[in-house]
Amino acid sequence: MLGRLNHVAIAVKDAEKAARIYGALGAEVSPAVPLPEHGVITVFVTLPNTKIEFIQPLGETSPIAKFLERNADGGIHHICYDVPDIIAARDRLVKEGARVLGDGVPRIGAHGKPVLFLHPKDFSGALVEIEQA
Amino acid sequence: MLGRLNHVAIAVKDAEKAARIYGALGAEVSPAVPLPEHGVITVFVTLPNTKIEFIQPLGETSPIAKFLERNADGGIHHICYDVPDIIAARDRLVKEGARVLGDGVPRIGAHGKPVLFLHPKDFSGALVEIEQA
Repeated sequence: MLGRLNHVAIAVKDAEKAARIYGALGAEVSPAVPLPEHGVITVFVTLPNTKIEFIQPLGETSPIAKFLERNADGGIHHICYDVPDIIAARDRLVKEGARVLGDGVPRIGAHGKPVLFLHPKDFSGALVEIEQA
Repeated sequence: MLGRLNHVAIAVKDAEKAARIYGALGAEVSPAVPLPEHGVITVFVTLPNTKIEFIQPLGETSPIAKFLERNADGGIHHICYDVPDIIAARDRLVKEGARVLGDGVPRIGAHGKPVLFLHPKDFSGALVEIEQA
């Protein structure tokens, strides 16, 4: 039911600058992609087994603006796991006592696939995203 | 030069309890292993492509005690990347302006391999460990 670690998302003020040191170490770094509907600019770093996703605020109502107020240098914002069936995963998580953020209905995430976020208090202080693989 | 994401380390007060929800989702969860020389108890969650490593303080001088004072619910403590040659990686990182924590000499980490930690200010607020693969 729990699949691959899809990505680690790191919120920063400047995604291209943040990714630069990964490029210097030989990792593949994507161009910056603005996602206005999600309020972020993304830069992906491709590692052999997963991705690091730098997210930079876009617009005045970016969902990561507050996080960057609290963490001026940036920081790890969330981790995302693949699940084969997001409804089955959600129902199992709720049964285990985990709280789903929002109304519990998957919405289309930054990769064009259904996603949900789980409450950090139910995941050891880590914000967890699940994405239908 | 930069290899796989070896693990995501999540610091918590109770590693077995934290890993329980991953087990409920079908992930393989290791027994708790005390590592007195590192001041932590570890529980590993094996995902298809990487590991989540829960670390719980052990002893009065645990290196993660302060982190848990600041983050009572726990939180993502560091991310670890494999590198084929830790000295070459260190020298390249220093050349790029990254600060190596401690004296810059690799020490043997929790997996029995040479590791170094890099300053979070040089990695977008994320504490980064590199481990010789």
